[in-house]
Amino acid sequence: MNQVYFYFDYLSPYAYLAWGPIQVLCAKRGLALHLHPVLFAGLLTHWGQLGPAEIPPKREFVYKDCYREAMLQGLPFNGPSCHPFNPLLALRISLAEISAADQTRVVDALWKASWGDGIDMSNPQAIKAALDQAGLNGAELVEAAQSPQAKDALRRETEAALARGVFGVPTVIVGDELFWGHDRLSHLELYLDGKDPLDRTQVMAMLSRPRGSDRRAIRAAPVS
Amino acid sequence: MNQVYFYFDYLSPYAYLAWGPIQVLCAKRGLALHLHPVLFAGLLTHWGQLGPAEIPPKREFVYKDCYREAMLQGLPFNGPSCHPFNPLLALRISLAEISAADQTRVVDALWKASWGDGIDMSNPQAIKAALDQAGLNGAELVEAAQSPQAKDALRRETEAALARGVFGVPTVIVGDELFWGHDRLSHLELYLDGKDPLDRTQVMAMLSRPRGSDRRAIRAAPVS
Repeated sequence: MNQVYFYFDYLSPYAYLAWGPIQVLCAKRGLALHLHPVLFAGLLTHWGQLGPAEIPPKREFVYKDCYREAMLQGLPFNGPSCHPFNPLLALRISLAEISAADQTRVVDALWKASWGDGIDMSNPQAIKAALDQAGLNGAELVEAAQSPQAKDALRRETEAALARGVFGVPTVIVGDELFWGHDRLSHLELYLDGKDPLDRTQVMAMLSRPRGSDRRAIRAAPVS
Repeated sequence: MNQVYFYFDYLSPYAYLAWGPIQVLCAKRGLALHLHPVLFAGLLTHWGQLGPAEIPPKREFVYKDCYREAMLQGLPFNGPSCHPFNPLLALRISLAEISAADQTRVVDALWKASWGDGIDMSNPQAIKAALDQAGLNGAELVEAAQSPQAKDALRRETEAALARGVFGVPTVIVGDELFWGHDRLSHLELYLDGKDPLDRTQVMAMLSRPRGSDRRAIRAAPVS
């Protein structure tokens, strides 16, 4: 219960909104925060789902929504210069296998660079510069992230997340409990503080109730 | 700005969570609340999206999440006896064309019956009984909802919602502004009270930035 697993992709502005609060939440309680970069596109493909940026009115809503939430949090929100972007390099640099003891500083630098400063996250030069600016060795990290080991490690991270039921980002897992969304860190806090209002038995009973009708059936045989 | 449009489907426990608060929010400000039943399955199909109940770990999370939110709101949460269910009859009864002056009472009765009391929402007898219990004429409403006019009207409602960019439920639209999710009624309140933190020009500029890379491209040509 004192190990907190944080799953993220720089593509997600909601994960950006969670990054500050999850650190505060763990620091306050002396919990170990484990950082897991995962390929959001891989999660979507696995579950057969579309991302918010793939549905035009949802894309617009999500940008406005995150902008509002960022302002209410007092966080700069300037968006990356292209979106969606190819996050693979940034994610690989952020792996524990690559950034090692600097992982938190690397991840922090890349969150600030992407959604705060609005750099082009698919451009290795821009990523290198952002890391250098944070006092890290950008060239070394970019180089290391291009190894076959880094590629394998990111693939493993994404597969491990899927195996734990991660379907979106940000996701936080503590014990067997999964919390999805920056706006559910308040539920995580209740859970950690022994105040979770969940009646597990009742919810599990609901989940085991029969499915009445699925989408295809609803469309094929409307009530008449 | 004093007309509030609420889009919902009884299938969605999040719309259930919004039903009490949206009424309070409108009543406090003297705003007219327009109720728009829509077929959530139709929205999903139009946008090519999966619903939460169609992704196993998301289904579990959503049930737990809504249970927690309901408890924090002090709302009973017993779930309908089958889920997903065929919501067509309940939605058609809830159309302004069918329930007329009783619309708010009908919608309220069906929310309480479905997620509060946990009736079988695909069973016309159970729906009739719930309406009767609320002092409405269940038999008459169930009968009227089976007319071709009712079917057309629900189809029109769903199409009109799509035309306004509705991609999920609950959605509230005021003027040209769309708010998705029961947990964003706080943003709606800021908007209505002239305190929206959104910088529209800045967000519109972000939305018009180039798309850097889409999912297929990310998978086909990883950074190497």
